[in-house]
Order: sequence, then C-alpha cells, then structure tokens
Amino acid sequence: MTQQNHDVPDTDTYDAAASSLAGQVDNSVMAELLSIRSSIDNIDATLVYLLAERFKATQKVGFLKAAHRLPAGDPGRESAQIARLRRLAEDAHLDPAFAEKFLNFIIGEVIRHHEAIAEDHQAAAEWK
Amino acid sequence: MTQQNHDVPDTDTYDAAASSLAGQVDNSVMAELLSIRSSIDNIDATLVYLLAERFKATQKVGFLKAAHRLPAGDPGRESAQIARLRRLAEDAHLDPAFAEKFLNFIIGEVIRHHEAIAEDHQAAAEWK
Repeated sequence: MTQQNHDVPDTDTYDAAASSLAGQVDNSVMAELLSIRSSIDNIDATLVYLLAERFKATQKVGFLKAAHRLPAGDPGRESAQIARLRRLAEDAHLDPAFAEKFLNFIIGEVIRHHEAIAEDHQAAAEWK
Repeated sequence: MTQQNHDVPDTDTYDAAASSLAGQVDNSVMAELLSIRSSIDNIDATLVYLLAERFKATQKVGFLKAAHRLPAGDPGRESAQIARLRRLAEDAHLDPAFAEKFLNFIIGEVIRHHEAIAEDHQAAAEWK
C-alpha cells in the first residue's frame, strides 16, 4: 500500500460529487443530479479530446499557410462552415445561433494560433 | 435525373472547397488544405452532435433545479469541472487555458438556459 501524505491536498483527484448544494437538497434529488452530471463529465472528456484533435488539424493548416505566406483567416471558408454548422445544429436540435457562436469562438482561437505560427515562421526565416 | 431550378440558389449545398484563396494558391497546396479541412469538417459535425447531447443533459438538470427551486449556477461543481478539464486538456495536449475558456463559454450558455427554464416554471406555477 502506498504511503499517502495527508498534509498535501491531492489536487489530481476529481470529486464528481462536488457541489455547493451538498447537504441542502434531498438525497434523491442529489442522486438524480449526480447521475446526469456523470454523463456530462463523459461528454466533456470527449469534447476535450475532440477539440485537441481539431487543433492538431488546424495546426497543420497553420504551418501550410505560414510556409506559403497565406493569410490566417479565410472568410469564404468561414461563411460556408457557419452555414453548414447551423444546418447540422438544426438536425441535432441544437440552437443554430449557439452553434454559430461556438464556431466563431473556435475560429477566433485558431486564427490567433495561425498568426503565432506565421510570426515564428517569419522570425525563423529572418535568422536563416 | 431530377430537374433542378437554377434560378434559386440551393442554400442547403455545402461547398467543402469554399475559400477566399481559390485561384490564388498552387493546386497542390489547395489539395493539401482541402484534405485537412475535410477532417476538420468531420470533427465539427461530431462536435455539434456532442454539444446537442450535452445540452439535452443540462436541460434535464435545468428542469430538476427549477422543480426544486435550486440556483442555476453551482460554483462548487464548476470549479471541480474546470480543474478536471484542465488536467484532461494537458493529457490531450490541448492548451489548458483554452479548455477552461471553452468550459466557461459553455457554462455561461447553460446557466442562461437554466434561468429561462426556472422563469417558465415560475410563470407556469403562478397560473396554476
């Protein structure tokens, strides 16, 4: 058995039952809440890994754009993406306005990454 | 063969090759770009369906909270979620700061939904 140091809080431990409502609600209500939250936690882990995969793909785009000195943003692509995601959101019964806001949030981050890659590329080229 | 009306633009058609760069870059570069974008499009469709599923789960939480007059937000839960997602992001090689910003973006939307459900519930109770 591993010796544990109880003076140092184990920050790696996730408490799936963490809640500011603890002790304030009926046990059966809390049990139902925790059951739904457990599904949300599974979905969130999937979202994180999927987003990581998406950023791996956009990083490749960033390198390609930097190597060919192409602009970070592509408005023609972005408006096609937004129209498609809005349609997909309708099919999935997700608010299309939220899907658009979500994509814009992601694209904003991607463009910042592209610009950083382009700056690095430019700096490396100047040192050659 | 189906007769198409060419006067009406088919807004449901997604052009996976839509780009403001069309005609301005080398064919081989554009082919590589489109290949990566096709993976991004698949990931985005998955994200939309996964987010739809997440909102189905949080809608259940919203109804539960409204029925028991519980507050829309749960700071104890949210800080545990953020710490967990930051750790998952590190494992997935995703920027933990971005993962936190992403979760806050989603939670902001969820809390708005919870408040709307609570208002509807309250209004329905007053009419009873």
